[in-house]
Amino acid sequence: MNKIKIGIIGGSGYTGLELLRLLCMHPCVEVRSVTSRSLSGKRISQHFNSLSGYYEGLAFTDPDPEKLCSEIDLGFLCVPHGVAMDVAPQLLERGVRIVDLSADFRLRDASTFENWYGEHRAKSLLATAVYGLSEHARDDVRDARLVANPGCYPTSVQLPLIPLLQRQLVSTKGIVIDSKSGASGAGRSPSLATLFCEVEEAFKAYKVCEHRHTPEIEQGLSLAAEKKVVVTFTPHLVPMTRGILSTIYVDAIEGVTTEDMIACLNEAYHNAPFVRVLEKGQFPNTASVKGSNFCDIGLKLDNRTGKAVIVSAIDNLVKGASGQAIQNMNIMFGLHETTGLLSPPLYP
Amino acid sequence: MNKIKIGIIGGSGYTGLELLRLLCMHPCVEVRSVTSRSLSGKRISQHFNSLSGYYEGLAFTDPDPEKLCSEIDLGFLCVPHGVAMDVAPQLLERGVRIVDLSADFRLRDASTFENWYGEHRAKSLLATAVYGLSEHARDDVRDARLVANPGCYPTSVQLPLIPLLQRQLVSTKGIVIDSKSGASGAGRSPSLATLFCEVEEAFKAYKVCEHRHTPEIEQGLSLAAEKKVVVTFTPHLVPMTRGILSTIYVDAIEGVTTEDMIACLNEAYHNAPFVRVLEKGQFPNTASVKGSNFCDIGLKLDNRTGKAVIVSAIDNLVKGASGQAIQNMNIMFGLHETTGLLSPPLYP
Amino acid sequence: MNKIKIGIIGGSGYTGLELLRLLCMHPCVEVRSVTSRSLSGKRISQHFNSLSGYYEGLAFTDPDPEKLCSEIDLGFLCVPHGVAMDVAPQLLERGVRIVDLSADFRLRDASTFENWYGEHRAKSLLATAVYGLSEHARDDVRDARLVANPGCYPTSVQLPLIPLLQRQLVSTKGIVIDSKSGASGAGRSPSLATLFCEVEEAFKAYKVCEHRHTPEIEQGLSLAAEKKVVVTFTPHLVPMTRGILSTIYVDAIEGVTTEDMIACLNEAYHNAPFVRVLEKGQFPNTASVKGSNFCDIGLKLDNRTGKAVIVSAIDNLVKGASGQAIQNMNIMFGLHETTGLLSPPLYP
Amino acid sequence: MNKIKIGIIGGSGYTGLELLRLLCMHPCVEVRSVTSRSLSGKRISQHFNSLSGYYEGLAFTDPDPEKLCSEIDLGFLCVPHGVAMDVAPQLLERGVRIVDLSADFRLRDASTFENWYGEHRAKSLLATAVYGLSEHARDDVRDARLVANPGCYPTSVQLPLIPLLQRQLVSTKGIVIDSKSGASGAGRSPSLATLFCEVEEAFKAYKVCEHRHTPEIEQGLSLAAEKKVVVTFTPHLVPMTRGILSTIYVDAIEGVTTEDMIACLNEAYHNAPFVRVLEKGQFPNTASVKGSNFCDIGLKLDNRTGKAVIVSAIDNLVKGASGQAIQNMNIMFGLHETTGLLSPPLYP
Repeated sequence: MNKIKIGIIGGSGYTGLELLRLLCMHPCVEVRSVTSRSLSGKRISQHFNSLSGYYEGLAFTDPDPEKLCSEIDLGFLCVPHGVAMDVAPQLLERGVRIVDLSADFRLRDASTFENWYGEHRAKSLLATAVYGLSEHARDDVRDARLVANPGCYPTSVQLPLIPLLQRQLVSTKGIVIDSKSGASGAGRSPSLATLFCEVEEAFKAYKVCEHRHTPEIEQGLSLAAEKKVVVTFTPHLVPMTRGILSTIYVDAIEGVTTEDMIACLNEAYHNAPFVRVLEKGQFPNTASVKGSNFCDIGLKLDNRTGKAVIVSAIDNLVKGASGQAIQNMNIMFGLHETTGLLSPPLYP
Repeated sequence: MNKIKIGIIGGSGYTGLELLRLLCMHPCVEVRSVTSRSLSGKRISQHFNSLSGYYEGLAFTDPDPEKLCSEIDLGFLCVPHGVAMDVAPQLLERGVRIVDLSADFRLRDASTFENWYGEHRAKSLLATAVYGLSEHARDDVRDARLVANPGCYPTSVQLPLIPLLQRQLVSTKGIVIDSKSGASGAGRSPSLATLFCEVEEAFKAYKVCEHRHTPEIEQGLSLAAEKKVVVTFTPHLVPMTRGILSTIYVDAIEGVTTEDMIACLNEAYHNAPFVRVLEKGQFPNTASVKGSNFCDIGLKLDNRTGKAVIVSAIDNLVKGASGQAIQNMNIMFGLHETTGLLSPPLYP
Repeated sequence: MNKIKIGIIGGSGYTGLELLRLLCMHPCVEVRSVTSRSLSGKRISQHFNSLSGYYEGLAFTDPDPEKLCSEIDLGFLCVPHGVAMDVAPQLLERGVRIVDLSADFRLRDASTFENWYGEHRAKSLLATAVYGLSEHARDDVRDARLVANPGCYPTSVQLPLIPLLQRQLVSTKGIVIDSKSGASGAGRSPSLATLFCEVEEAFKAYKVCEHRHTPEIEQGLSLAAEKKVVVTFTPHLVPMTRGILSTIYVDAIEGVTTEDMIACLNEAYHNAPFVRVLEKGQFPNTASVKGSNFCDIGLKLDNRTGKAVIVSAIDNLVKGASGQAIQNMNIMFGLHETTGLLSPPLYP
Repeated sequence: MNKIKIGIIGGSGYTGLELLRLLCMHPCVEVRSVTSRSLSGKRISQHFNSLSGYYEGLAFTDPDPEKLCSEIDLGFLCVPHGVAMDVAPQLLERGVRIVDLSADFRLRDASTFENWYGEHRAKSLLATAVYGLSEHARDDVRDARLVANPGCYPTSVQLPLIPLLQRQLVSTKGIVIDSKSGASGAGRSPSLATLFCEVEEAFKAYKVCEHRHTPEIEQGLSLAAEKKVVVTFTPHLVPMTRGILSTIYVDAIEGVTTEDMIACLNEAYHNAPFVRVLEKGQFPNTASVKGSNFCDIGLKLDNRTGKAVIVSAIDNLVKGASGQAIQNMNIMFGLHETTGLLSPPLYP
């Protein structure tokens, strides 16, 4: 089989690096182009020393849509929100398929997007973009030209909640999502808030009630519940590099047990190799998924209060970004979705 | 004034060390005795190298109630749960006042204690023990013979919630408490779960729906609300040494605003130098209270869902243990409650 | 080709886990047995949650040499120093080849071993054991029955120094080795010194002038220099999980330049895919080798003092233990030495 | 006694913050002015949330030498290297004494300064500036108008070495200094290299053989030895916030023992409350000095090689910067040098 020819657009940050790390181990791809205005001409391994010995001939290039599109089958967009909407049409019209890691095409409703993010300059694409939460969108992803790769927090929240809402085991009212993320989610651009001395031995909430992943979460949960779902969502910054743990509080429907909910998830993810539903009494740890594409889920019904406490863990750079992007690419090109993604977590 | 003569019973762990660290800076005390069976005869500064140059003449001793009580005015009990209930009567009957850092005298109701902790062998003391959440118990603490020093999580939860419940600004139903603690809360005894390699780059929930601080939280909130309050409480382990951040979700009463709740806390803590209520839009960070006796509180009403999101931060070893114990001692001996406790947080 | 049948003896610690992690990705092996007295009967993935979904049928077993040896071609010994010397003969006499990760067979001279470690009960094997610093021992490893896998510090020191000593570019006198290791080198057994709160925000030297890797380093350097080499070696504990960085100070021979030394290393490691000699002006970072089998080396001649400053970095659990063990296994069984070991470092 | 009126010039970074933290606890000073162009008008506690409740009336101001000098007795200069040389004359000519935390006045020889740092625009002050390594300069500091506060690495190196060189217990040849610092030494300005994700789980050397503290170290050692001393100095970055540990390798003079060297240090620092010379067999840990002005020193003669291994630990922000600056201020104003500086280290 011919290798899939890959371009990474905006590859100087952590999601670009993570794609490069993961694609090293992928047997069916060839990375042809990695663009970065600021690093143009620099070799990949000069910028990312961990990759010395890999991609030896490859250097960052200035973005040039014409040339780029003549070389690649699929482009991963790692540009910031607001930029992807300008880049995507250039690739699509030249026949290149896209997995977009930004937020630009995740929300179906343009006005919701504009409420949370600002102007959208490619609204016509919103209807055809496929929201790529892989386990729940395989059929649509397969034929998609433009996949909107889910956000990190929304991935960690939707994977456990969608089946429970679909089967109506939990209430749609009063859902509380308390999420905690490592610092790599904030990216590789220098800022005071993500300096080592500001993050180490520090724990805080941020963007309380106003994080832009809120509408993305609500969109997914509403579709699952077939009714409008509104959530309270609080992200926190953990003094670690990788990992998201989401602790979700939701009222269980009367009579539903811990076992019922675990059974529901096991059934839903029976054929989902990256979702690991833990046994009763077990709860996930971000360390157990570090570097991998797994989402681990554990839960328990608090009989004293009737609330289900659902905990999920992912690596925000893998299942929360570049790993899921590759999973979607695999589906788009007819490969098994685990291809190149089965390295186990790095623990400890 | 004569110095208060202090004994620390069971002083080999982190709360004992933290008492020693803080009492160095206290102008009105003299530490006369630090007991530890395993370290008897060893100098304090041999065991705790950070204290080299302090307490130079002092060594750990075997516990001997007779001798100990002849030397001290007040004993801090740093022994494990289940041991304090045996030690306390020995000190009290010899006229020594006690601040107990264990859980043994925190719950007024013996049967609740026994449900969560096991047998209680000093039930008769439960009625006279004073629950020492300093800001809400000054009058009782002043005259107490036996102060039960609050748990770390309960301190972080009760300080923000008690005034809001007392003024009926928030509902008593469906309270969710999502707490995160540094590893020092687990103590200084070697265990696999608290090894560096197990905690670093790891984040997890533990004792989901079954942590023993739950009844202590509920006791305090129920007293404030004057009705039975049941909570869903999930503690998490953060890869840091010090600090607790509690994120609390509670339904605001119709019509109550963010400003109302902040005003309520400001009024309640007007004369509480260790509680810092943040301005609207600000949220606490454990780094800003590290090493200090402060509790920082920030909150916001999520207008989309009607839930108040309340965030509090303490240093678990200070306001969550040894600092509050000294604050209680200050009150018991007629000192200003801040005496010796005003060193600012160590940041960064 | 038939898969190599593998046993891991004493597999409950970090080196056992790391073997399991790496062997997941190895196309030519089958892990048949993992022994642990304390965990016998427990499934691998119950003990190591990160491996959930891998090795699903496999559980720890009690060590039973007869049964074990009937099932496997090669045993990795992950037992403590002093135990391997008792286990090795049992396997060898039943025809099973061994890679021993302990120190028991690293020193050729029994009396040196006994000076630093204590009694040796299998001295007769010392003569046939092959010291498995892979890059310098491929021919001997290929046919070895018993490979003594090098220590972590000695690996980081010998790889840069051996070629420089062989070519006589540096002096054998006055070599200073200042090494720094992450906490995983201390293993997975609970101890006060490796608790999170003791390691975090702490940096210290330990076993100053008395670490047991000293004679192993001296043995290797002496062989390379063809004269007795004595070194000053100081290990330090870094608040991180993985990684060793060794900073080595050695007098350059008059007239030798930075370029000469880099050229020497490039030539020596031309066919060594796991040794990455950095360009002039570049120095290694443990983060750039994390999770991988690489050893990165950078160096510089300090013209002001005539000393060469040589810096090397490895992942102590991979090239410093389990990765090199697999590299040796590959060589022993006629595979390319990189087989299964080419996953890139996990950075960030 | 009247309080000493203090100005902090350039107070927005970590050394300014650390001065503010430490001066909170100082009974004899009043901070009158903290300047920062970028933060002018902002309250101190808005910028540094840890200080909420302290310095409540105080805001950053634009630097205005005339006004500033009318208000203060002493100015701490926390401006970058190259700026202090312009600011200092403005204060001195208005009668304000200075402790300069930058490097501008540390080197007596202007040409050495210019080799390592660039142009010096206030050379005439170099002769009168006093190098404020407090323990070795009390008499000069007492009357100084301009104290050059030592660098962090040079403090950690000179305190152990000066007495040993003065008494000629160690050789002046071939000194190797391997230093390790926490990330706060790099300051509070955002940069890629000090992002959390770049520092966490990473260890590296930097500025190998070219760090600008080299000539400062050599100046101090040469004065002590009364002959030119040249050193090999390698700094490293540790994944922690505070602390420097320097491991120093130096040839002991024939016949000198570990005990001799410890006795020498004990005698030299008999009246130095901030230098803690450890007993034979003990070595320092940065955790044991965190947040304090102590310098802990341990050492051992390696009998196998004749090298003395000397290890020192300081908190780089305290004894390595702001604490020593206050110690110098105390001496300048006739206070006991420990005034306000005796809070014990924060451990754990």
